[in-house]
This record gives sequence, C-alpha cells and structure tokens, in this order.
Amino acid sequence: MTKERLYLYDTTLRDGQQTQGVQFSTAEKQQIAEALDLLGVDYIEGGWPGANPTDSAFFEAAPETRARMTAFGMTKRAGRSAENDEVLAAVLNAGTGAVCLVGKSHDYHVTQALGITLEENLENIRASIAHIVGQGREALFDAEHFFDGYADNPDYALACCQAAYEAGARWVVLCDTNGGCQPSRIREVVQAVIASGIPGGHLGIHCHNDTEQAVACSLAAVEVGVRQVQGTLNGLGERCGNANLVTLIPTLMLKAPYVDLVDTGVSQDRLGDLTRISRMLDEILNRVPQKQAPYVGASAFAHKAGLHASAILKDPSTYEHVDPAVVGNGRIIPMSNQAGQSNLRKRLMEAGIEVPKGDAALPRILEVIKEREAQGYSYDTAQASFELLARRELGLCPEFFEVKRYRVSVERRKNKYNQMVSLSEAVVVVVVDGDKRLSVSESMDETGSDRGPVNALSKALQKDLGRYSDQLAGMRLVDFKVRITQGGTEAMTRVIIDSEDASGHRWSTVGVSPNIIDASFEAMLDAVNWRLLHAETMAAE
Amino acid sequence: MTKERLYLYDTTLRDGQQTQGVQFSTAEKQQIAEALDLLGVDYIEGGWPGANPTDSAFFEAAPETRARMTAFGMTKRAGRSAENDEVLAAVLNAGTGAVCLVGKSHDYHVTQALGITLEENLENIRASIAHIVGQGREALFDAEHFFDGYADNPDYALACCQAAYEAGARWVVLCDTNGGCQPSRIREVVQAVIASGIPGGHLGIHCHNDTEQAVACSLAAVEVGVRQVQGTLNGLGERCGNANLVTLIPTLMLKAPYVDLVDTGVSQDRLGDLTRISRMLDEILNRVPQKQAPYVGASAFAHKAGLHASAILKDPSTYEHVDPAVVGNGRIIPMSNQAGQSNLRKRLMEAGIEVPKGDAALPRILEVIKEREAQGYSYDTAQASFELLARRELGLCPEFFEVKRYRVSVERRKNKYNQMVSLSEAVVVVVVDGDKRLSVSESMDETGSDRGPVNALSKALQKDLGRYSDQLAGMRLVDFKVRITQGGTEAMTRVIIDSEDASGHRWSTVGVSPNIIDASFEAMLDAVNWRLLHAETMAAE
Repeated sequence: MTKERLYLYDTTLRDGQQTQGVQFSTAEKQQIAEALDLLGVDYIEGGWPGANPTDSAFFEAAPETRARMTAFGMTKRAGRSAENDEVLAAVLNAGTGAVCLVGKSHDYHVTQALGITLEENLENIRASIAHIVGQGREALFDAEHFFDGYADNPDYALACCQAAYEAGARWVVLCDTNGGCQPSRIREVVQAVIASGIPGGHLGIHCHNDTEQAVACSLAAVEVGVRQVQGTLNGLGERCGNANLVTLIPTLMLKAPYVDLVDTGVSQDRLGDLTRISRMLDEILNRVPQKQAPYVGASAFAHKAGLHASAILKDPSTYEHVDPAVVGNGRIIPMSNQAGQSNLRKRLMEAGIEVPKGDAALPRILEVIKEREAQGYSYDTAQASFELLARRELGLCPEFFEVKRYRVSVERRKNKYNQMVSLSEAVVVVVVDGDKRLSVSESMDETGSDRGPVNALSKALQKDLGRYSDQLAGMRLVDFKVRITQGGTEAMTRVIIDSEDASGHRWSTVGVSPNIIDASFEAMLDAVNWRLLHAETMAAE
Repeated sequence: MTKERLYLYDTTLRDGQQTQGVQFSTAEKQQIAEALDLLGVDYIEGGWPGANPTDSAFFEAAPETRARMTAFGMTKRAGRSAENDEVLAAVLNAGTGAVCLVGKSHDYHVTQALGITLEENLENIRASIAHIVGQGREALFDAEHFFDGYADNPDYALACCQAAYEAGARWVVLCDTNGGCQPSRIREVVQAVIASGIPGGHLGIHCHNDTEQAVACSLAAVEVGVRQVQGTLNGLGERCGNANLVTLIPTLMLKAPYVDLVDTGVSQDRLGDLTRISRMLDEILNRVPQKQAPYVGASAFAHKAGLHASAILKDPSTYEHVDPAVVGNGRIIPMSNQAGQSNLRKRLMEAGIEVPKGDAALPRILEVIKEREAQGYSYDTAQASFELLARRELGLCPEFFEVKRYRVSVERRKNKYNQMVSLSEAVVVVVVDGDKRLSVSESMDETGSDRGPVNALSKALQKDLGRYSDQLAGMRLVDFKVRITQGGTEAMTRVIIDSEDASGHRWSTVGVSPNIIDASFEAMLDAVNWRLLHAETMAAE
C-alpha cells in the first residue's frame, strides 16, 4: 500500500507566540525557524507581517529554509477590494511563498464580531484567496471556529470552505479555535466536509488543547483523511496551547494506524533530534522543560516502580512503548548506570574526547555529574561546562590561571543632576604563571550607563590574564539565563551563560550557587577556560 | 434517556506516587485523600499496604471518607495458597472496603517476568480474587499490559479477565500499562472484551499519557461502554503520568457525548472547586502549577491575541469553550501592546479600581504600558506592578516611603579554613514619615551560608520601615525569574518576583534594568508597596 504524504505545518512563531508570558525577539524567531527547518516540517508560519514590529522585522530578514515560509494574515475587510486592503498588502509584501489567511466560518461571528452579512464574508474569502493566488503564491485558508460554526449552521460553514477552495486555496484548514471539540465529533464533521467535495488532500486540521485532546483530535482528523496537521513545538499557544508537534511527529511515524497510512517529511535521523530540539525551545524561552512530556521529557522513560525497573533490565520493551533512543531521549533507571556509561562515551566523543569502554574514569565522571545535578547543575545544554568537568576528571584540563578572590559592589544614588544612577565596580585577583594580578573595572558602557555587576566582573576578570588576554579578545556574553532550582532543601540559583567569540562561535556554561553573583562568576570562569582550551583549534579554523 | 453511572477511581496516592521527584508523606496523603473526597470521586486508592512504611502508616490512620478507600496489591504468587501469601495478607490487613490486585494478562510477561505457566497465572488470579470476595470485600482486578497482551495473544488476555470476573471481581480494569495504545485501538479492543461476555458496567480503564492521549483513550473506552475510569489529580504518575482526572471530570460533565451518556458522582458545586483542588495538590508537592493546564491553568482562559480579546469583551462564548466560573477558574485579558481601553478598564476593575469610560487617564496609562513594554517590562503576569503603575497615573497610590540610595557588595575569598566563601552585604537608606533610616543586613542564613545580594537587599529594605514594618512581617520571596530581553538596542535584564505573605496570598511584580541588581530591587520595591497598599484589605479578610 502506498502511503499518502502528510504535511506538517508549524505555527510556533505565530500561534505559539500567543502563549501567556511568551514574547519572542526577532533573533529568537530566527533561531526557532532554523530548528524547525532542521527537524523537517513542511511549512513555517513566521508571524503576521505588519501586525507588530517583531514579526515585520522577522520577515525582512527571514532565514533561508527548505520548509515553505508562510505569512499569516486575515481575509480582506468588507467595503474595499483585496488590492486596496492595506492589512492584506502588508502580509503579501513579506514576499513569502505561502500565505495563510484566517477568516470566519461561523455565522454568529460574521454577523456579531464583524458586523457584516454572510454573503459579504463569503465574498471576502473568495476575493482574498483569489488575490493571493493571482500573485503566484500558495494560498491557505484558516476556517476559524469551523467546528462550532458547523454545529450552528453546517451549510454556511461548508460554504466558507468551498469559497476558499474554489478560489484556489491549496489548503482549507479546519480550526477548532476554542478547543472544546471532542475527537469523535472531529471525525464525524471532517467526514462530512470530505463528502461535500473538498478532498482530504486539501484539508488541514488546527486544534487547541483546552480539553487535553489537541493531539487526539488532530489524529482523528488524519484517520479520516486530512493531510495537513498544524501545531507548535512543545504545544505552545493561546490559552492551553496548540496541538503539540513534538508528540504528533513520533506518533505519526511510529504508531499504527498512522505509520501505515501516511508519510511525514521528517526523516528517522531527524526524529533522533526531537528531544534536543524540544529542549532548545525551552532554553530560548527560559522555561523549565516539562519532565513528564511524552517522548521527550526527562521522566518519559524513567522507571521508578520497583517491579518495572527490574523487568526493564531484562527486556526494555516490557515497560516501554518505544525505544527512547529513537526520539533522542534516554532511559532512567534508579540505581543503574549501565545505560549511563555508553551515553557518556557518546557525549565525550562529540566533544572530541575518546575514552575506551570500561575506563575507570567513566563511572567517576557519572558520579560527579549525579552529585552536581543534585545540587542544581544541568549539563543538558551547558556542553562546554560538561566538557570541562570531564576533562578535569580525565586530567586533560590545564589550569590556565587561579582566581584568589573577587569583590563586586553596586551602588545606587542620586547624581549631581538629582537623577538616580547606578555604578557597579568589580575587583578580581588572579595568579597567572606565578604572578599575582589585581584588576578593577566598572561596568559603564560607551553611553555612560551602568551594565551591572556581572558585566563589571567579566571585564575585571578578562582585563589582565597575562599571555592569555589576547586569546580572549572579542569574546562577549550573548545570553544570560537565571533560574531558581531546588538543590537539596535550599533554593539554588542556576545561571547559564552563552558566550560568543569574534568569529561567531558560541558555547554555553553553567554555574550554581545560592548567590546569583557566585553562580554567574562560576559560569563566566568556565566560559573563559573553555575559550582558552580551544583557542588554538579555533584560530586554525 | 437515563444516564448510566460512571465511577471515578483515583490513584493519585498510588500510581501518582510513581512520578519522578514525588514522595508523599503520610500527612500529605491524608490531606490529598480529604481533597479527593470533597471533590466526590468514588474510589481512593491509598497505596500498597506493606510495600513501604508511608503507605502502611497511611492505612493505619486513613481518614474517614465517603469515597470507598481501596488498598492496592498484587495477585498471589505461584506455589502457595492465597491464604498463605503474606504480601496479599498485608493488603487485606489494611481493612479497606475494596481491594485492587494487579495481575498479568500478557502471556510474554507471565512466562518471562514471572517465569510461571499460563495456567498457573490464571489460577493465581482466580484464587486471589475469590479470597478477597470471601473476606466480604469488593474486589478489583487490574489487568496489567492488557492491550499489549491482547495484541499478542487475545485469547489469553481475555481468559485472564474472565478468570477475575468469574471469581467475583466487581471490576475488571483494562490497563494500557506502557501508555502506547491509540484511542481507536482502545475502542476496538474494549468492544471485543464486552462481546466476550464482561459487561461494560464491570469494566474499568487505566491509561497512561506516553503519547499525550491518556484522556482521549479513557474517553474512547467510556464511549463504547466502560463505566469506571482510573486517573490521578493533575495527571501525576509513572513516566508521563496517568489519565488526568482534573481534565476528565469536567469533560465528562460538560461535553457531548459524555454528558448525555453518563453521570459521575461529582456535583456541579464541587466542579466549582476543581481549580482550587488542582492547585492545592501542586501546593502540597511544592510544584509551580502548570499555566496551560486545561480548565484549571492560570492561562486556560487567558486571551492574548488582540482579535480574541476584543471579541471576548462583547461575548465571552466567542473564544471560550466553557464558562471559566463553572470549574472555579477566571478569565484573564493580559495587557499586551494591542490591548485597547476596554481591556484596560476591565483589568482595572479586577484590581478594584473603577475608571469611567472615556477617562483621560486611560490612554495615558496605555501609553505608559506601551513605553515600558518596549523597554522590556512585561505586565502579562506581573499584575501587582500593573496595578501600581495604574494607581500612580490615577493619583491613587500613596508614597509610603522613599528610597534615597542603596549599596550592595559581594565578596568571595578564602576563609581561615582555606575554603572559598562568599559574603553579601547591603545598605539601604530610606525616608519614612520624614525620618531618614539607614539599615544594613548581610544575607547569611541560619546554616551560615550566603544567600546572595538580592536576599541581603531584601532584608535591609524591610528591616526598618517604621510603622510599616509590622505589615510586612511574614512576607517572603517565593520565586525569582530573570530573563535577558532586548530593550531598544541594549540587552536589558527583566526580573519577575513572586511574593507571598503569611496567609498564603501571592502576587507578582516586575523590574527592568541593564543591571540585574537594580532590576531586582525595583521588583522588590513594587512587591513591598503592593503589600502595604493592600495591608488593610487583607487583614480584614
């Protein structure tokens, strides 16, 4: 049986941005778009050009992607032509290959929210879609509130979809905007839409998680023929979120009946990056990854029950629905580091360190990691700190310099113009090649404003490291994330620093302490040491 | 049409305890049992008596509940009688009205994990269930790995269920132990079980969330006739968790087809306690409640998209699948840069501030919010800072005290034992009622370790605020979140602080600055001012 192609449409950058507390910067949008493209989705909805400065800036410098970049907007307003609607024009001006327009399909919303006639709305849909197609773009129509609309007035809801389809929409996307529809109802209504004449190969599904069934509803639609699924990474989105692509993708690729029915564009190799990509998004958002997330959560393959853990050691399939390695995740079995050692060797290899199987350093390194993770450290993303830790245990990490002490102060008071101003000052004392060096810096930038204590410490630390100073030229802190974690019974502060050198190399380090300044300094020290360790290799590149 | 009764079986205290990182104390188990009873579930599975000291202690002093208290255990082992199995005896000795025994129903597990014959396993099921019934207890049989077992050997899986049913089990519970089964498969297999002779009124369903479909799978089983649903509060449980009763209960009570099909024992009144009960569990576990949780999450009825927010004001049903009040939750319309004046008035009303339509302060407040959001502030969650900002614009915010200046220092050096130690010290100068007061604090805690500069500043600020000091007694910082945002061209630090007072009230404030200490201090000042502003109202509650 030949499988039909199922298209994945990601809306993390648009509907995902409606998550309470989420506000992407343009740079973050670019990073996420690149990760989505790596994963292998078919469409990336980048935002609504013209609706806000971030979205507009993103489209001006959108990354080159294999996935089809899509601009989102709404159908033209009544009383003007599609050509003369400046909101629609802004969407088209983004110059994307595909354009997705949301429009009403629930009669109540047409007359109440828009305050226009049902026929005017149909005409808005027709004219807008035809205009996009006329510009040589791929058109998509998001039928807002479709399932609620179908319940109240099935003929009109279908007519909206027909209008878009007949005007040339490549996809008509059935949206359960309010998220209250149940899977059996989705199945039934989708079958009615297909019976009305729009083939499943032209239908998409867009579900929300308000009853915890966005995944189930999406899959129900796929079972009856829909061939485009919309969702977001980690289920971000308005209210309770959108359908979670991080769950949908492996289910579609690994589980019956989907695996026998459809093919996504995601390769088995990329499926192995799923856990990493999911956690990267949380990293960008400075969220704690959900431990219980299906497939990718840290607990997804953790076997705590005693009966389960012992059976798992005999045969993992006894208590696992899929092999965790397939999605890039790992098994956690309390009291067993069997799996740990081979993972560790793999990760060391990635850092360019070969350690033979059975080396006595392996359990020692695992032990140190375990202890430090109990204190609040996290080495999932802080690969540079992980590498330094392992090298120290292996005796492969030279001590370039020693920090004897530091002091940092922040003072806030009125200046002579009676304005409140801050001044941060740091003193760092290091020993390099046997020489003691005292450096002091303040954190004032070229505009005369204070950049804070971490900046002052960073400047003082790098100010005079003797023969190493040159190798640190151009290095800068590009991101700084702070999180409160539980280390034993005490609240601990975890700082993750992303650094970059002049040639654009980036690396991440971690520090943990109840004191935010100590934690920052520790991460900063790791960043400097890692740079010095790799100075020669990098210079040669 | 008369509805059939659907029984809710809660296993928070047993399977929920398998969550990684969760370890209930006996007292916590009692608290949770009382909350479950208040909610109105039919069965409370309290744990496995004899398996660990906490569970044993819980049953020794189990609270009196309307719900049927249930002890969990496993079928007797081969080679001894049910009467002589001391593991089973410990379970019966708990003296509960109902006993649930897990047993194998997958042939592979019988021969591989237990290492006994298929017939021996059937005999263990029969004898164990008969023994429980013989003691006058209600017997339940958890058919472990039932769906996987049915796939490999349907006759044997059914034979296990039949053995339990014929031996007198009130309920045969079909378990998708590994959580990989899809809803359409659940539906099909349950229909086969009913066709084999066990009525739906004697069947239960126990699902796990490994593909994010524990709720969907449970509901699929209910649709085809199963009349007991097992789950946990907030979806706690092994790996990705169990079916979430907090989602299932309102869906069963509010949504078609379930609402027309079955009746749970939960009253409409108790449904209104759902949000409170869900958050109480998180409180007991010291977890941050999931904002996006269906029905009960803080974001579940938050309308961020501009188009949605304005329609909601006309008619909430336009973007809400149920009325949030029905589940004890509330609507949130966050301030975002598109938010209009009517949103603003509504949000002010929630803070107890009435501003007439068309008041000139409204556009002024919106302008200030816009400017501050461009600098990096975020008022989505920091409701207390939003309120202070608005009150200041409206002239409704007294100045309790003035901060003249502060200074904080962190020093890290070796102590006399040659260990690196830190010391944070803060000086804050305030004017209260015309009096200048200088306070100095260090951040050492009772164990002698340093808690950092923010802690030192907080102590110094609250140390001497004259007549206001009493009103701040017991106030503490419960969460602290830091992010780097882009404010114009400069990297800015945004700090969000969650504070709590002695009576458990919580509020969030925000501060922004390139200097992390300044940003923290600003958020801290807002927290203190908000507390002082509400001191009288709160004391009166």
